[in-house]
Amino acid sequence: MNKVRIGIVGLGNMGTGHANYLIEGQVKGAELAAVSDIRPERLKLAQEQWGDNVRTFESPEAMFRSGAIDGVLLCTPHYEHPLQAIDAFSCGLHVLVEKPAGVYTRQVREMNEAAAGSGKVYGIMYNQRTNPLYMKLRGLISSGELGEIRRMNWIITNWYRSQSYYNSGGWRATWAGEGGGVLINQDPHQLDLWQWATGLMPTRIRAFCSFGKHRDIEVENDVTAYAEYENGATGVFVTSTHESPGTNRFEISGNRGKIVIEDDKMTFWRLRQPESEFNRTNTNAFAQPECWKFEIPVSGGGAQHMEITQNWTNAILHGTPLIAPGEEGIKGLTLSNAMLLSTWTDGWVDLPIDENLFYDKLQEQIERSANSKR
Amino acid sequence: MNKVRIGIVGLGNMGTGHANYLIEGQVKGAELAAVSDIRPERLKLAQEQWGDNVRTFESPEAMFRSGAIDGVLLCTPHYEHPLQAIDAFSCGLHVLVEKPAGVYTRQVREMNEAAAGSGKVYGIMYNQRTNPLYMKLRGLISSGELGEIRRMNWIITNWYRSQSYYNSGGWRATWAGEGGGVLINQDPHQLDLWQWATGLMPTRIRAFCSFGKHRDIEVENDVTAYAEYENGATGVFVTSTHESPGTNRFEISGNRGKIVIEDDKMTFWRLRQPESEFNRTNTNAFAQPECWKFEIPVSGGGAQHMEITQNWTNAILHGTPLIAPGEEGIKGLTLSNAMLLSTWTDGWVDLPIDENLFYDKLQEQIERSANSKR
Repeated sequence: MNKVRIGIVGLGNMGTGHANYLIEGQVKGAELAAVSDIRPERLKLAQEQWGDNVRTFESPEAMFRSGAIDGVLLCTPHYEHPLQAIDAFSCGLHVLVEKPAGVYTRQVREMNEAAAGSGKVYGIMYNQRTNPLYMKLRGLISSGELGEIRRMNWIITNWYRSQSYYNSGGWRATWAGEGGGVLINQDPHQLDLWQWATGLMPTRIRAFCSFGKHRDIEVENDVTAYAEYENGATGVFVTSTHESPGTNRFEISGNRGKIVIEDDKMTFWRLRQPESEFNRTNTNAFAQPECWKFEIPVSGGGAQHMEITQNWTNAILHGTPLIAPGEEGIKGLTLSNAMLLSTWTDGWVDLPIDENLFYDKLQEQIERSANSKR
Repeated sequence: MNKVRIGIVGLGNMGTGHANYLIEGQVKGAELAAVSDIRPERLKLAQEQWGDNVRTFESPEAMFRSGAIDGVLLCTPHYEHPLQAIDAFSCGLHVLVEKPAGVYTRQVREMNEAAAGSGKVYGIMYNQRTNPLYMKLRGLISSGELGEIRRMNWIITNWYRSQSYYNSGGWRATWAGEGGGVLINQDPHQLDLWQWATGLMPTRIRAFCSFGKHRDIEVENDVTAYAEYENGATGVFVTSTHESPGTNRFEISGNRGKIVIEDDKMTFWRLRQPESEFNRTNTNAFAQPECWKFEIPVSGGGAQHMEITQNWTNAILHGTPLIAPGEEGIKGLTLSNAMLLSTWTDGWVDLPIDENLFYDKLQEQIERSANSKR
């Protein structure tokens, strides 16, 4: 193979965006070969725009079995990702799935198992992993520059969404339609970056979600989560959609100092000597380690979605390692599921979570919602 | 009375500091008339320095009954404040107590009751209430400039204390000696300012304290607390003594914008229209309220301890309202006690707290400590 023939499932905002840069030939070694959408008007528009070069299918199943494509890009509602990916793998296709990987971890684990059995290239559209700020953070942490992490505090409250946004689609902010609120719709990047950049998943979580705060919706739009880690570190993750102007500030404190990412800048307060070493030898009751504050140079903007699609294409053609392996989509989703589950059970949630319990609790929400609203 | 004759109990760091500015005549209408300390060498030093102008007493009880003073400034270990204050009130003295008011709310409530029955002027040394930054914050919030508060996040991790500090006194960082760690010793100001500047006390708290993290001590030195308020607001309070360099950043988000205090500066992101009003009328799914960012001018440094002592003196002489009424000391202590209690019971703590349960749990810590260490 010297060209990957890509099929896109779902021509909404994301799917159309991916189609456009593929059509423009911006991903080397890839071409848009087919699209599928259950909405006839979308297919009609595709045909008008792209003509016979791009085949159109009324169902993903038909496209998967057409022989017209080598891989699929899944841009459908969250719930459908695992179902479609599993089907695509069974048809011998490579898969690149939009985030979030799914709504509940049980279905995503099944998707991961199907991927593992298929031998196909399986990626997830975590385009923020190409953001130089977080790549740099990951590099600083993994190389030991920050020392062992002791505490994290991420305030990500700048996902402002007014009632008008929530009213713009009946499926929005419903348990049945999207499977959640800010955690599943707005935060998948941050939840992934939190674990990816730091290399740490919590051992347990205690979280406090508010549902429909200052908004007429049924899902969570205000969350404070507390996380504990195996090494004794702790973390706080705060997110909401009703605050204006919000904040996006990620602070990580370690044995060698502190890093803060805010306003697209990274500041590093670096200790000349690790705190643990200073503490062991210091004899002055009120002394502190010497600290140097500086800004970390971060260059370039990252090619975002296009870079992820290029990387996935390269992985198919040349075996290039993936920036965002599909299997890792379950990590951010685990954090998100754990936060809801902790609220619903009003208690600690140990990781990995009880995926069946989460599924049952989610069904309860869906049923309650159907009873009260429809 | 045209001069308040003050007696100081406890000539440690704080007591000596207060004595010095009183001796220098920096508090109008007040004079240092007597001091008491159980350590003979401290009294000897006082006599050498100040001669016969200042009477010395080996016990506070004797000083309270000497007729030599009109009011006392209590600068003794935390546990003793309520006992000594109650005794002082019974002797007809005015009382200015150092913070924290005490170690557990039950003893502080008893102190408050004694004060109420005495008719004497009762203040607490919350000198940070004279800090123009927090005075301004309180003014902005109480005047409605920020609108109803929705969220708060205070990271106060710059109370760095090395092992050397903890080793500098056998009573330090012990349940029996100080009654706690960072919450009782370093944070009393922030815990008071949190409720004083915002005018809000939580309805319940869930907190996570770590004891002796990165330090060989038995008390808490790392805390994350989550608070819920009657109006639906939430808050996070994070504090520690082992991080270097720490952070002191207080973010408050409200219906009219956001205020951040950090690096001794106050920044206000002010919405032109309240968020709730914008949200009600806005029809553009991705629009946000117009926001103006500016720095709030804050002038002067606040006279701190001296200003509190002057204010208390003025209250005695002229009936001036107190900046920090003694009765309010129980509020910050309630927050601190609630955080420990939530950790010990691994659950929610409703406010006001169960003061007897807290007392019992504290005794358990003291007993366990005695068993394992002495």
